[in-house]
Amino acid sequence: MKIVALAGGVGGAKLAHGLAQILAPEELTIIVNTGDDFEHFGMYICPDLDTVCYTLAGLANPETGWGRVNESWNTISNIEKLGGPAWFRLGDQDIATHLERTRRLKEGQSLSQITRDFCNAWGIKHTILPMSDSPVQTIVDTDEGELAFQEYFVHRRCEPRVKGFRFDGIQVAEPVIGAREAIESAEAIVICPSNPWVSVDPILRVIALIPVPRSVPRGEGKKIIAVSPIIAGKTVKGPAAKMYAELGIEPSALAVAEHYRGLLSGFVLDDLDAHLSDNIETKTLVTNTIMNSNSDRARLARVVLHFIGSL
Amino acid sequence: MKIVALAGGVGGAKLAHGLAQILAPEELTIIVNTGDDFEHFGMYICPDLDTVCYTLAGLANPETGWGRVNESWNTISNIEKLGGPAWFRLGDQDIATHLERTRRLKEGQSLSQITRDFCNAWGIKHTILPMSDSPVQTIVDTDEGELAFQEYFVHRRCEPRVKGFRFDGIQVAEPVIGAREAIESAEAIVICPSNPWVSVDPILRVIALIPVPRSVPRGEGKKIIAVSPIIAGKTVKGPAAKMYAELGIEPSALAVAEHYRGLLSGFVLDDLDAHLSDNIETKTLVTNTIMNSNSDRARLARVVLHFIGSL
Repeated sequence: MKIVALAGGVGGAKLAHGLAQILAPEELTIIVNTGDDFEHFGMYICPDLDTVCYTLAGLANPETGWGRVNESWNTISNIEKLGGPAWFRLGDQDIATHLERTRRLKEGQSLSQITRDFCNAWGIKHTILPMSDSPVQTIVDTDEGELAFQEYFVHRRCEPRVKGFRFDGIQVAEPVIGAREAIESAEAIVICPSNPWVSVDPILRVIALIPVPRSVPRGEGKKIIAVSPIIAGKTVKGPAAKMYAELGIEPSALAVAEHYRGLLSGFVLDDLDAHLSDNIETKTLVTNTIMNSNSDRARLARVVLHFIGSL
Repeated sequence: MKIVALAGGVGGAKLAHGLAQILAPEELTIIVNTGDDFEHFGMYICPDLDTVCYTLAGLANPETGWGRVNESWNTISNIEKLGGPAWFRLGDQDIATHLERTRRLKEGQSLSQITRDFCNAWGIKHTILPMSDSPVQTIVDTDEGELAFQEYFVHRRCEPRVKGFRFDGIQVAEPVIGAREAIESAEAIVICPSNPWVSVDPILRVIALIPVPRSVPRGEGKKIIAVSPIIAGKTVKGPAAKMYAELGIEPSALAVAEHYRGLLSGFVLDDLDAHLSDNIETKTLVTNTIMNSNSDRARLARVVLHFIGSL
């Protein structure tokens, strides 16, 4: 069964890892948000892409949800001594990824080519694609003005009140080579439990599943299922619930299903939200969506794949 | 006694450190070569400047002659795993210097301003100035074509045969603010035992002590003394002797004195070269110029200052 998974950071990476535990390399393509990419200290940093790669490679830090396991912090602590900004916690091993990526980009290699090489070096067998080789920059409009995504997310710890989002460069951002082909040959697209506003929407727009305006979904004939990142009105990690609330929408699995309205063939929500199931217009699967361990990830993936098979 | 020291990498840094052990902060300004600066992984790296700063701060690695003491190598070893170039050995602490410098340069700060801030952070009391805030790039012309300096020096380990040197950007490179003033108010300029071709010449040109053509030295009235980096036909470290030989000049303290012809009020050569003293047209001091320990550095500095006083 060929599957395309769309993923942002931690939550998306976990389900992608679950799918990778079950599907063969040729059966799974993971398309990752790059709207949160940014330049810092002259390095080109791709937080979501790195989280997905590190997670699939078994290199991810299980405690933080970002960065590398067994990490050291000698560079950032010396940057701090020099009075430099340390709000984005750069580990020494993680910096290698950013530096080598930056070097290759400056040499003219594409982000997708670099990602492929890195995945090979890290022993990742499944295909991980950045959504685009062109830069897309997520801008968060807040009550304190517009903020670049990492500025909002990491530096300001999602404190400013969200008013909206903009994805600079998205109009001209083509999907990477292989993304369209993977989608065309896939039986289903799995929207992983990532932030709908800032992780999934940019991917959907780039791969033209949500053209602007949103009225012409092009997923016809393709099963598209989403796993809710919101459980009992809250997120395991990240600001999705806070964003819904600040945008005047009650944060819930229902709101997420509504977010993807017109696009879905199926929707997966947590046991805690079972009571919402009847209000969702598409077919639903109610299950435990919490992924604390590798086997939780595999279990959810297996259940999701079974759900797809049943649609 | 106000002194300006001109320094390149290791040898120059050692004597500069010796002078700093004896002279008060307001008595010593060290002007450092930046012709070997280069961009690597998108970082702006200043090897000579960092060696001088690390040496004066007590942060230098005494074994390698470059980089930081008690260094860790987690970034570069991960860059290697990704197939990236590891010929320039970047330590984790050292990378902090390059990243924060790059960040500030991109913000519009000048290299001299950044160097001042870093010196403050590292507890360096004496003034260290990069020769210029404008980029100057030393190009080594070799039998294998032109090579950027670090490519020749580190990557190719000085193996290609040298035919000449070019300093791109030097025509428009102004000395940094404070350099001219320091020279004007100094009693003497000490040319540290650094490579005459690629460490000292660029500084001399930028501060207009050797205008091109070399015929009009502007050091009149100023004592200028040089310490030979060549001892018994060899260098303690670095390719100066090899360069002289490849350019058809027998490498010796005599060749160094000849290199600075017309500029010097005094020349310091090693005990091993005492026999060359009579052939040198300027006043000479013969002493032990090997600096193995901090006290060696201070001893040589003291002898050099005494020599200046006697001129």
